[in-house]
Amino acid sequence: MAVRVIRKAYFNSAHRLYKKGWSDERNLDVFGKCSYPNFHGHNYTLELSVTGEVDLETGYVIDLKKLEMLIQSCVIEKLDHKNLNLDVPELSGKVPTVENVSIMIYEQIKPHFKDKNIQVTLHETNKNTAIYPAVL
Amino acid sequence: MAVRVIRKAYFNSAHRLYKKGWSDERNLDVFGKCSYPNFHGHNYTLELSVTGEVDLETGYVIDLKKLEMLIQSCVIEKLDHKNLNLDVPELSGKVPTVENVSIMIYEQIKPHFKDKNIQVTLHETNKNTAIYPAVL
Amino acid sequence: MAVRVIRKAYFNSAHRLYKKGWSDERNLDVFGKCSYPNFHGHNYTLELSVTGEVDLETGYVIDLKKLEMLIQSCVIEKLDHKNLNLDVPELSGKVPTVENVSIMIYEQIKPHFKDKNIQVTLHETNKNTAIYPAVL
Amino acid sequence: MAVRVIRKAYFNSAHRLYKKGWSDERNLDVFGKCSYPNFHGHNYTLELSVTGEVDLETGYVIDLKKLEMLIQSCVIEKLDHKNLNLDVPELSGKVPTVENVSIMIYEQIKPHFKDKNIQVTLHETNKNTAIYPAVL
Amino acid sequence: MAVRVIRKAYFNSAHRLYKKGWSDERNLDVFGKCSYPNFHGHNYTLELSVTGEVDLETGYVIDLKKLEMLIQSCVIEKLDHKNLNLDVPELSGKVPTVENVSIMIYEQIKPHFKDKNIQVTLHETNKNTAIYPAVL
Amino acid sequence: MAVRVIRKAYFNSAHRLYKKGWSDERNLDVFGKCSYPNFHGHNYTLELSVTGEVDLETGYVIDLKKLEMLIQSCVIEKLDHKNLNLDVPELSGKVPTVENVSIMIYEQIKPHFKDKNIQVTLHETNKNTAIYPAVL
Repeated sequence: MAVRVIRKAYFNSAHRLYKKGWSDERNLDVFGKCSYPNFHGHNYTLELSVTGEVDLETGYVIDLKKLEMLIQSCVIEKLDHKNLNLDVPELSGKVPTVENVSIMIYEQIKPHFKDKNIQVTLHETNKNTAIYPAVL
Repeated sequence: MAVRVIRKAYFNSAHRLYKKGWSDERNLDVFGKCSYPNFHGHNYTLELSVTGEVDLETGYVIDLKKLEMLIQSCVIEKLDHKNLNLDVPELSGKVPTVENVSIMIYEQIKPHFKDKNIQVTLHETNKNTAIYPAVL
Repeated sequence: MAVRVIRKAYFNSAHRLYKKGWSDERNLDVFGKCSYPNFHGHNYTLELSVTGEVDLETGYVIDLKKLEMLIQSCVIEKLDHKNLNLDVPELSGKVPTVENVSIMIYEQIKPHFKDKNIQVTLHETNKNTAIYPAVL
Repeated sequence: MAVRVIRKAYFNSAHRLYKKGWSDERNLDVFGKCSYPNFHGHNYTLELSVTGEVDLETGYVIDLKKLEMLIQSCVIEKLDHKNLNLDVPELSGKVPTVENVSIMIYEQIKPHFKDKNIQVTLHETNKNTAIYPAVL
Repeated sequence: MAVRVIRKAYFNSAHRLYKKGWSDERNLDVFGKCSYPNFHGHNYTLELSVTGEVDLETGYVIDLKKLEMLIQSCVIEKLDHKNLNLDVPELSGKVPTVENVSIMIYEQIKPHFKDKNIQVTLHETNKNTAIYPAVL
Repeated sequence: MAVRVIRKAYFNSAHRLYKKGWSDERNLDVFGKCSYPNFHGHNYTLELSVTGEVDLETGYVIDLKKLEMLIQSCVIEKLDHKNLNLDVPELSGKVPTVENVSIMIYEQIKPHFKDKNIQVTLHETNKNTAIYPAVL
C-alpha cells in the first residue's frame, strides 16, 4: 500500500481580489474589503503531499529535503514577498483567490511527479483553506 | 478538477454524555466522567469543507464570507453558548457525542448545497475529532 | 540567576457568568450570552510557571512530573468535567470568570511553593486569557 | 494583586520595508526582499493585554467583549485589508516594521486606559514578534 | 454513512536514518545530517483515525478512551522514550523514517480493528508528516 | 520605551537525563523514563527575545534576519541533529534538562548583545518549557 508524505512551507504575499474588466463597484460588491485598491496580504502555509510506494532500501517515498528544494524553486521563489496580482506571470488574468493560487502551485509542481499523485493544501488565513485536487 | 475549500468556525457549549432510559450507574460505566450530572463543556472547532468547480470569473468555489454567514445562522446560533442536552431540538433523543454533533451539523448545512459535496470536521478537544461523512 | 519552568495541563468545564442577587435582565445586560441559563463550557488550557534556582545536581528547578501530579490533584480533580458554578466550593460566591478561576488555581497551588514564585496563565478560549499574578 | 487579561485579534495587511529618502539600493541592502516594490503582506495576530484589579462584583478586569469592540474600532478598522505604507496616516513617515506597528497600536489603545497598564504583542509571522512596552 | 473519529497521542523518541550494510559515506550522502552517529530525536504526534458506523445507543463509533488505552499499550509503550534504531524489534532491519514508523504503528493497531478502516497520520516535525494508508 | 522582539527557531536533538557518578538505579529513580539508556529526543522550539530601543531610521530593534543568522551559528549548528549528552562540549558535566539547555543557549548568545537584554524561552515538548533569565 502507498504512503502519503507531506511537507510544509511558508510564503508571504500581497494581493487583492479584483476582476479586470469589472467596475470598481462590482469588484467591491463581489469581493468586499478583499478588493481594496492598495492590496493586503497573507502568511500562506503550503502543505504539499506526495503519494507513492516506500523505497525498500531508504524507507522514503521521496527525500523530503529534495521536496523542500523543489518547493523552494517552484513556489517560494515565485510567490514569496511578491504581489500575486502584479509579479506572477502564471497567475496573469486570474483573480488570485486561494483556489486559483492552489491550482497554480499544483501546476508548477506536478510536472516533476509524472508517476506520483500530489495534492496541494493552501492555508490563506487561520480560517480559509483550499485543497487541490479535492480528492487524492 | 474540483477544488475543496474549508472555512473554520468556533463555538462553546456545555454537554454531558448521558443516555436517557439507562441508570446513572450504566451511564457512568459507559461514559465515565463525561456523564457527570452538572455538565462540562468544550471549545468546539468546526471545519466545513465544500467541494466544487472554480468559477472562471470570480476564482471562487464559493464565497467564503457567505459560507461564514451560513455557518453562523445554521450552526453557531443553534449551538454557541448553549447546552447540547437541553437547548438543541435537533439533538433531542441523541447522546451529544462529537460523532452525533458532527452529523447534526452536516444535516443543517447540506440542504444549502444540493449539488456540492460537503464534509464536517469537528474538534471537541485537542485530542478528539470526528469527520462526517468519513470520505469525500 | 533563576530559571522559570512551565507545565501545561488541560481541563474541560461548564460554567455561566451569573451574579446571584442580580436579576436575570441585569445578568444578561452585563454578561450577555455568557449568562445563558443552561451553561456553556470551555476547554481550558493551564500554564503553571515555577521560578527558582536550578539544582546543581539534577539540573531541575522542579521535577516537572511532580509538578504535573500536583496540578492533577490540586486543579484537574477539582475542575475537570465539572460545573464551575455548582461543583467547586472554592469558587462559591464568585462569578467563574477566567480571572477568578486563575486566582482560585493560584490559591490551590501556592501553599505548595512557599519559597518559589508561581504564576498561573489560563486560556479560556483561543482568544481570552488571564494571568495571575500579573507580573512575576 | 492585579490580574492581566489578554484578548487576541487578527488583521491582514500589505506592506514593504522601505525608507523614503534612501536609494532603492540602500533599501534593498538594509531590508532585503522585504523592500520589494510591489509589497508583500502578513496575517498579523495581535494580543492586547490589560492589567488591573478584578471587580469584586463582576469578576472582570475588563469586559473582554468591550475590549474586542475597542480593538475593532481602534486597530482593525485602520489596519485590516489595508496597505501599511499607503493607507495609514498614523504610520506616515515610519517604516512599517513589526516594532513600529506595535507602537502605533499601543498609541491608539492607550488613551482608553488612563489608569491601567496595557501591553501589545504583535506576531507578524510564525517566527517574528514584537512586544511593546517590553516590560509590564 | 460512516463517521471517522480521530484520537491524538504523543511520544518522544531518538533515531537516526542509517542503512546497515551501506558505508557511512553513502549514508551521509543519502540521509544527510539525519544520519549523524549519536542520534537525534523528535516529539512525534500521532493521529489515529477509525472509521465506522455510529452506535445508535451510545453515539460512539468507538469509545475514544478505549482507543487511547489501545494506543498506549500498542504504540506508546513500545516507542516513547525509546531509540527507534535500537529498542524496537518491530522496526528491526528498517530505516526508521516517518514512513516506516507510520506503517509499523498501523500494523500494531490494525489487528484490533478487523472490520473497521483505520489510518495513521504521523507528524515527525512541524514540517514532515506521513499518512498510511494514503487513502481511506 | 523599549520594544522586545522575538525570533523563533527549531532544532531536533537526542538526549537522556543521566547524572554521571550516580548508579543507574538512582538515575532511574530521579529521572524516570527520561534516563533510559539509548536516549530519546525532542523537537525543541527556541524563542529568543532581544530588548532595546527602536532605531529611528530603520524601525528595527535588531534586523531579525541577522538574529536568525546568529541563532543559526551559535545554537542550531551546535545542537541540531546532535546528542546533547555526547556531542556538545558546552553541556559537558551537566544533565541536559530543558533548564540547563536554556542557560547554555543564553550563554552562547549573550556575548553578542553587550548592551541589550536577551531572554531564552525553550519548549522541549508541547507541555514543558524553560525561560532564562526568569524575568526580563
